Amino acid sequence: MLRIGMLTSGGDCQALNAAMRGVVKSLAANVADLEVYGFENGYKGLIYGNYRLLTSKDFSGILTKGGTILGSSRQPFKLMRVPDENGVDKVEAMKQTYYKLSLDCLVILGGNGTQKTANLLREEGLNVIHLPKTIDNDIYGTDVTFGFQSAINIATDAIDCIHTTAASHNRVFIVEVMGHKVGWLTLYAGIAGGADIILLPEIPYDIDKVVEAVQKRSSEGKGFTILAVAEGAISKEDAKLSKKEYKKKVEKRKAPSVSYEIAEQIKEVCGTEVRVTVPGHTQRGGSPCPYDRVLCTRLGSAAAQAIMDRDFGCMIAMINGKTKKVPLEECAGKLKSVDPDGQMIIEAKRMGISFGD
Amino acid sequence: MLRIGMLTSGGDCQALNAAMRGVVKSLAANVADLEVYGFENGYKGLIYGNYRLLTSKDFSGILTKGGTILGSSRQPFKLMRVPDENGVDKVEAMKQTYYKLSLDCLVILGGNGTQKTANLLREEGLNVIHLPKTIDNDIYGTDVTFGFQSAINIATDAIDCIHTTAASHNRVFIVEVMGHKVGWLTLYAGIAGGADIILLPEIPYDIDKVVEAVQKRSSEGKGFTILAVAEGAISKEDAKLSKKEYKKKVEKRKAPSVSYEIAEQIKEVCGTEVRVTVPGHTQRGGSPCPYDRVLCTRLGSAAAQAIMDRDFGCMIAMINGKTKKVPLEECAGKLKSVDPDGQMIIEAKRMGISFGD
Amino acid sequence: MLRIGMLTSGGDCQALNAAMRGVVKSLAANVADLEVYGFENGYKGLIYGNYRLLTSKDFSGILTKGGTILGSSRQPFKLMRVPDENGVDKVEAMKQTYYKLSLDCLVILGGNGTQKTANLLREEGLNVIHLPKTIDNDIYGTDVTFGFQSAINIATDAIDCIHTTAASHNRVFIVEVMGHKVGWLTLYAGIAGGADIILLPEIPYDIDKVVEAVQKRSSEGKGFTILAVAEGAISKEDAKLSKKEYKKKVEKRKAPSVSYEIAEQIKEVCGTEVRVTVPGHTQRGGSPCPYDRVLCTRLGSAAAQAIMDRDFGCMIAMINGKTKKVPLEECAGKLKSVDPDGQMIIEAKRMGISFGD
Amino acid sequence: MLRIGMLTSGGDCQALNAAMRGVVKSLAANVADLEVYGFENGYKGLIYGNYRLLTSKDFSGILTKGGTILGSSRQPFKLMRVPDENGVDKVEAMKQTYYKLSLDCLVILGGNGTQKTANLLREEGLNVIHLPKTIDNDIYGTDVTFGFQSAINIATDAIDCIHTTAASHNRVFIVEVMGHKVGWLTLYAGIAGGADIILLPEIPYDIDKVVEAVQKRSSEGKGFTILAVAEGAISKEDAKLSKKEYKKKVEKRKAPSVSYEIAEQIKEVCGTEVRVTVPGHTQRGGSPCPYDRVLCTRLGSAAAQAIMDRDFGCMIAMINGKTKKVPLEECAGKLKSVDPDGQMIIEAKRMGISFGD
Repeated sequence: MLRIGMLTSGGDCQALNAAMRGVVKSLAANVADLEVYGFENGYKGLIYGNYRLLTSKDFSGILTKGGTILGSSRQPFKLMRVPDENGVDKVEAMKQTYYKLSLDCLVILGGNGTQKTANLLREEGLNVIHLPKTIDNDIYGTDVTFGFQSAINIATDAIDCIHTTAASHNRVFIVEVMGHKVGWLTLYAGIAGGADIILLPEIPYDIDKVVEAVQKRSSEGKGFTILAVAEGAISKEDAKLSKKEYKKKVEKRKAPSVSYEIAEQIKEVCGTEVRVTVPGHTQRGGSPCPYDRVLCTRLGSAAAQAIMDRDFGCMIAMINGKTKKVPLEECAGKLKSVDPDGQMIIEAKRMGISFGD
Repeated sequence: MLRIGMLTSGGDCQALNAAMRGVVKSLAANVADLEVYGFENGYKGLIYGNYRLLTSKDFSGILTKGGTILGSSRQPFKLMRVPDENGVDKVEAMKQTYYKLSLDCLVILGGNGTQKTANLLREEGLNVIHLPKTIDNDIYGTDVTFGFQSAINIATDAIDCIHTTAASHNRVFIVEVMGHKVGWLTLYAGIAGGADIILLPEIPYDIDKVVEAVQKRSSEGKGFTILAVAEGAISKEDAKLSKKEYKKKVEKRKAPSVSYEIAEQIKEVCGTEVRVTVPGHTQRGGSPCPYDRVLCTRLGSAAAQAIMDRDFGCMIAMINGKTKKVPLEECAGKLKSVDPDGQMIIEAKRMGISFGD
Repeated sequence: MLRIGMLTSGGDCQALNAAMRGVVKSLAANVADLEVYGFENGYKGLIYGNYRLLTSKDFSGILTKGGTILGSSRQPFKLMRVPDENGVDKVEAMKQTYYKLSLDCLVILGGNGTQKTANLLREEGLNVIHLPKTIDNDIYGTDVTFGFQSAINIATDAIDCIHTTAASHNRVFIVEVMGHKVGWLTLYAGIAGGADIILLPEIPYDIDKVVEAVQKRSSEGKGFTILAVAEGAISKEDAKLSKKEYKKKVEKRKAPSVSYEIAEQIKEVCGTEVRVTVPGHTQRGGSPCPYDRVLCTRLGSAAAQAIMDRDFGCMIAMINGKTKKVPLEECAGKLKSVDPDGQMIIEAKRMGISFGD
Repeated sequence: MLRIGMLTSGGDCQALNAAMRGVVKSLAANVADLEVYGFENGYKGLIYGNYRLLTSKDFSGILTKGGTILGSSRQPFKLMRVPDENGVDKVEAMKQTYYKLSLDCLVILGGNGTQKTANLLREEGLNVIHLPKTIDNDIYGTDVTFGFQSAINIATDAIDCIHTTAASHNRVFIVEVMGHKVGWLTLYAGIAGGADIILLPEIPYDIDKVVEAVQKRSSEGKGFTILAVAEGAISKEDAKLSKKEYKKKVEKRKAPSVSYEIAEQIKEVCGTEVRVTVPGHTQRGGSPCPYDRVLCTRLGSAAAQAIMDRDFGCMIAMINGKTKKVPLEECAGKLKSVDPDGQMIIEAKRMGISFGD
């Protein structure tokens, strides 16, 4: 007899369903007596005891379905130890639900914040397995997270569409790609989309260098320039500010995001039209790409094996093409950023791509 | 011996190249001695004599290529009779280029504004053929324009992506669809994407009705609502303003567009998170869909026949599945809008879709 | 109180679910007391009383879902009056099910054969509404059927993929497109994919003309040629045979289909490699395209109105952009074929496309 | 001054152009005086001196373009030392072309066979760099080859389309995936597409086990079954035959491929309809996916660095997310097959996927 709980937490992304299907199909094929409880809307469902018993039918036909059949919500890690408005102790409440259902394990799908709470539950004595979900690809301890490749595809599609219109009108275009803290998505989509300039949170930009790169293309007879700019791209001056000062500055900013600010600056110097496109939340949506489906099926199957081995307290990672168990204590709370001096940046710069630095 | 000129004017869109290929392949297959001049960047090329002789190689492999191999630019009709900064009389300049090259005909691809200038050139004695291009589908005299279906596909893709994330997070989402004056694109993409509320320029909305529709869904246990909102959606009060007053109001608006304003209003009343997504210029870009490729091939072939018949001064339209020649004097300057009481709106309302009216 | 039954019959295609959703959402929004019975696997479910009561949940999220939630099967019209292996009178059995459930109306989604049986049920006194489904677009009385545009997209995708590999290897490629009796799908996909030669059931080909067209391209320095060939393409000689003789000949044919035969013939004369690709059943599958979703939503909504008006015995058609009711007695049993002398063929020929005639 | 030659050999695939663009853009950005010669149609161009000087314009806009701007052809390695029909010594001829043009290096894009010839040229004293291209992913020494992920996407699309139609009709469907010698593509597309049974060249199947797997699904109430079958799938008995005996048997086979044979066998035992779909050459075609574009840009950039470092005689590989130079003598002539006992197979089996063994 095996009883597991399952939840998806944080911003949703593609392939959450595929990952859950991987876990449950693998367990169902190997465990005679299996019960799967799905908690609704992330940790909220665990805290407030909102769950439903899932059957194999729930997992049929969801391999290609975006979103999450369990719903999701953001539950900031830093508030987990803070009682809610009714005085409920969230951690205790989660433990109670866990013990009330006599769960053998909790399978938790989510990003960095989710992982920290998963680790907290582990420290509190619960059996947990974490699956690394995020379009940001910023989870430490795994080569890749699911959602990432699907999001790259959508962001690249946007750049591809912009390419034809930019070329027809000799315009400068900025495509703003998701990613406040890390630039993986912008970097990959930027290269895949053939962007000329790529601005990442990890490599503060000098607006003069950005303008220079635009002008260089123009002087070479190339009528248009495409910038892939991460939501969290930051100028060299701003990077010197304290977090507080920067936050204040952002709040005062008239433009809705950094991309609009950069657009203004380029326009001012170069005199060309600069348009901004923001694919936004579409980057989290839609059907998972085949890459993510294979990734999630493998991670899910490996998670099932870990559960059957009663080997808990870990994230199931993909490292060098192999699924591996990484102890949560080793990875929780760490961020995987783009290395400004890493091989991939060097390769991109060699191609003539400007990072504005 | 046949000498034609060709230009693409106004905002670019998908299938411009497919249409030009249709014209030239048809002429090349039927005219022994053909010369095709391509004017660069719309009417600008015609005014300032920037053109190049095109060969069949230029038209090879472009059926699926977005944008326009000739480049495009916006040349407002109302400025056509106004000399440029150097005192050049634009209409005279265009005529001179035309006669200098001894053209038999000018093939002009563009939207409403472009068509008006085409008609002006016709009045000035030039032989012109117009091909109806626009993602807005607002050209009077043809059932459909090219670019429209391709743009629907992209806008619908965006709504599809938003659907999964909206459902996972129980959020209200607004997808802003292109269309300042007419709502065809929003209407089609909204229905195709399964939007719950669709706001069009032709049907001024009452924000209370919009909020009511959101709340109705919520009360029926549907956790999320999706709105497809045209760029030019307008509230009932604003619709009563004069053009000038409205323009002033828009300029003062803090939100970058009407969608953000509506988002604020819904949030205020309903208390739910409301997110806005703006696919923007991606809607004009990328490869044309098969529907547009067939449409353009047919329009192009029909244009070629009109040229060979020396039957000028018309737009090549698609009416009831057949290509037809429509005299420019009959259609130029007219706009095809969504009929608020038309069959399609009635059908959509019957489904329970709210138009906020 | 309104009780309707619903079934999908014949080869499945995209947008069946979208159409049923259109009907049910429209009825649910306008009828206080609605019961919808779904018959499983087409007429089979009606004959043998296999059905289930459907709720609004069944119709949620299926707008974009391919296939049919009811299942389908082929029940040849000519066997409808023939008792089954157990002596069951099918027509009587269907009537019994209908009356037992006290249905107000049967909504029947299907192609030509399905429509004939629908008409038979009408003659037998049942209230029926037919919705025109088929990737073949061969239903008389409507400009377009649903599934058609989605299938065009898939077949065109295949031709697009073949284009790059054909060009790289200077090969002749045949893409076999679905369509045994009519060539609409091949014609549209062929034009959209830029095929050089298109062979349709309606225009018997002369293999010498086909070879000539391949050689012409080769002599013009174009290294590759792409043929779009309908499953039911037929040579001029074979077209002269009686149905029986032709069937015999096909059975004796070594090649799996006519495309392989044509490939052999081209290879023999031209000496070039000729490859055949058969997308096959993929053309019926996958998510419906936005065009079909709008079409089905409109047809479904119009069907709902007809039901509420108790105006039965008709097909809901799309004619000149408007939904219309067409009496089944006017359209049942008739086929809409490609007119070999029609405008679209003339336009394609003008472009230099060969039809092998 | 740097002079390089470039050629693409073997079956074409997606991202060849992207890879060449990566090499040339990187060199152009770093080398003052660069000449790039493109050899036409693979080694043929090198043997017979068919080449053209390429300019940066040739590499503009080709990142997303499928196929190869240089053309390709198959030149079997085993015939390289055999004179052609006119007595031309191919290896000598290639060396002559190389020296005549005073090339610094030959950049060779291709699969296993191509790599062997590249190694031969290295042994003959030429400077060569090899880039690993193939949809088969079977090149030893690199984690992944380009074209692989794009082909997975296309094959998975086909399975996705088949899924809806299989489910609607309760049918057994076989999708035949490219791969005569190795099963990577079938394995990945099969998992991504949710296939129930996957048959690979590396795991000979027992038809009884295959039939059993179909029947098991049926007994569990799942109406349809999908098989992903590699072109080179082989039964246990056939795997025991010598190469010669097997070849003979295949030639005698009535069915066009192993899939049709398996279809017959399932049909015979289970009595269900079994349909076969063969996406065929579409799997090599179309635009490269973003994954392949990033991969190729990185490999191309790394190749450029190797050339500037004058570090030749290697393949540029992707190993653990990093580009690396692998000496040709270490990898040429070796094949990377699916390990029947590897982690990925174990994970798939845990999910309940049958490999027919």
